[in-house]
Amino acid sequence: MTLDAGSEYHPYLQQLGGHSVARTYQTSVSCGAGITQPLLKECYRIGVQTHNRSKFEGFLLGEKGNVVGVKMRENYHFGEDQPGKVLNIRAKRGVIMATGGFAQNIDLRMAQDPTLTSEVGCTNIPGATGEGMLEMFRLGAVPVHLAHIQSGPWASPDEGGFGYVSNYSIYNFPHSIAVNCLTGKRFMNEIADRKTRADAELACRDAKGEPLPPILITSYKDSKQHPNTAKVIKYNVGWKFDTLETLAKHFDVPLKALEAQIKEYNGYVKTGDDKQFGKNMSKAKDKYLEAPFTVVRLWPKVHYCQGGVQVTTKAEVKDSLTGMPILGLYAAGEVCGGIHGVSRLGSCSIPECMVMGMTAARSIMNA
Amino acid sequence: MTLDAGSEYHPYLQQLGGHSVARTYQTSVSCGAGITQPLLKECYRIGVQTHNRSKFEGFLLGEKGNVVGVKMRENYHFGEDQPGKVLNIRAKRGVIMATGGFAQNIDLRMAQDPTLTSEVGCTNIPGATGEGMLEMFRLGAVPVHLAHIQSGPWASPDEGGFGYVSNYSIYNFPHSIAVNCLTGKRFMNEIADRKTRADAELACRDAKGEPLPPILITSYKDSKQHPNTAKVIKYNVGWKFDTLETLAKHFDVPLKALEAQIKEYNGYVKTGDDKQFGKNMSKAKDKYLEAPFTVVRLWPKVHYCQGGVQVTTKAEVKDSLTGMPILGLYAAGEVCGGIHGVSRLGSCSIPECMVMGMTAARSIMNA
Repeated sequence: MTLDAGSEYHPYLQQLGGHSVARTYQTSVSCGAGITQPLLKECYRIGVQTHNRSKFEGFLLGEKGNVVGVKMRENYHFGEDQPGKVLNIRAKRGVIMATGGFAQNIDLRMAQDPTLTSEVGCTNIPGATGEGMLEMFRLGAVPVHLAHIQSGPWASPDEGGFGYVSNYSIYNFPHSIAVNCLTGKRFMNEIADRKTRADAELACRDAKGEPLPPILITSYKDSKQHPNTAKVIKYNVGWKFDTLETLAKHFDVPLKALEAQIKEYNGYVKTGDDKQFGKNMSKAKDKYLEAPFTVVRLWPKVHYCQGGVQVTTKAEVKDSLTGMPILGLYAAGEVCGGIHGVSRLGSCSIPECMVMGMTAARSIMNA
Repeated sequence: MTLDAGSEYHPYLQQLGGHSVARTYQTSVSCGAGITQPLLKECYRIGVQTHNRSKFEGFLLGEKGNVVGVKMRENYHFGEDQPGKVLNIRAKRGVIMATGGFAQNIDLRMAQDPTLTSEVGCTNIPGATGEGMLEMFRLGAVPVHLAHIQSGPWASPDEGGFGYVSNYSIYNFPHSIAVNCLTGKRFMNEIADRKTRADAELACRDAKGEPLPPILITSYKDSKQHPNTAKVIKYNVGWKFDTLETLAKHFDVPLKALEAQIKEYNGYVKTGDDKQFGKNMSKAKDKYLEAPFTVVRLWPKVHYCQGGVQVTTKAEVKDSLTGMPILGLYAAGEVCGGIHGVSRLGSCSIPECMVMGMTAARSIMNA
């Protein structure tokens, strides 16, 4: 379906966070817009109407508590005090909520996980504040897994949002080392699941307990294949070093310890057996760490909320007291909870959105 | 306050689940009723009215959405179809919800943690089904940590509820070994936090993946001090064996492996250093495992819901959209979320109930 609509994909498989093998094709623009934009164009072609600059303000309910529409504020610009008119939009068959997660709602995410302070950035749009989900809870939807929030361990504190570094480091993690600047040593399996790595990065602190972002060290020869490498260097969110000495001096890392770490790691590249953290070294084969190096800094950004409302396999939103669907209410995507468990694997939100979006559409047409 | 009301405590400190040292005095009846019953008597003495056999059916709301009372069904017997009249009870100052957790609501707990099927028992009363919490979510309370549900790793599959074994094993864990019947080997630190142990027990399965409850092996000489030891043997939920051979035969455990395990463990008793699971051996000092043995079977029971509604430090229930208190609504005890984090430490619900119960009462008197 996405190919029919015009999506394009990189011609190679990638091994994303938490996966045991390389099994993911990524869009050639390396983000979800490579799927949503072609689908949106296709929607316009077949006559679907959309409303941009509009804010969901609540549900319209029928006499039996069923959902018969939504309140929508027109002409809305996020965070600005210039509210448009609120329209009541009636739904012929039902409402599908696809309002995403709440990663930008700092109060709500800190209620679930106190480590996710404003000190931790976020890859989501500013409007990912979860009011759609919260309104569904007021209707009686079942809250599931809100406490399971995933931070992306591939993000950089040196740029906003997803930026250029995220895809750079996702590509390079398999043949790179992540190093704690205080010790000069590795501190994690660089391709462990996202939560394990984000927690490990957040634990990298200076003597006063302040954040000390760790660094990802890659051989320049192995990093330069990725299209973002030139960009991270150009925009000063990544740096190239000709020698280990200049690298260590730049980040104030103990040189001797770092030298020993790289020597040790190159031994694992040779044997294919990472005795420090059990990393799968198959994608690091023959990729010894050697100068010149490319380096980026890492600090997690809140990326995905595993939690949300409970849905049936038909994408119906369940009522917490009756266990039955709330009539007229459907949901798909990140706003749903319980699909991915404690930590979503990289790339698995795409099939969830596609499959459950289509399922919700089919359910609503049969309602 | 509890001493003034007449509570009595065992004269020795106990080291409960997840604690690093022995720091808990337990009531002499070894359960919370040793606190609640004396407090209830004291309430009657000062003229407090209570309503037993009554079911909470929802809130009465004022014009501004503030809570001004509750609907209460009289003459209610749990699970029976003989509903009494529903009364509207007006609250002069506000309502304090102390409705406990939802450990008996199998649908809701499985939505949060699919391993907590009906196969896993529960220590709570049958009415711990969470409707009070769910009604608060409908008013806009913030759901926090619902996915963090604790199972008691000290429970027995051979009796209902908390039973006799739970306190027996809590007392004996420090100087006992828990053994997987399939391997004859230990599989956990017997005094790790509750969640770690419950997860380890649930992983004990036979070749077909069916539950194979592990066994807790204690020297009879060290178990007999606990008042429940005679009871677990009398009621056939624990057994005494004169030799390791009869024990191994009874539970179909490989004898050689079990012999080797006990020899190894007794080495740790001697050195004070558990090289298998890092258990703190200080309470096992000089307590070598020797025949005759007392044995109980272990299988987790859902015990405590860390999750619930978010409250302020004044025990006010917060609104998910405004972040302000929902006027007239207070909560204390297990129905609150976010107090204990991922896994509550043994005994820590008592101070939470006492402190936040008093806090809620003070807030309501100042409202």
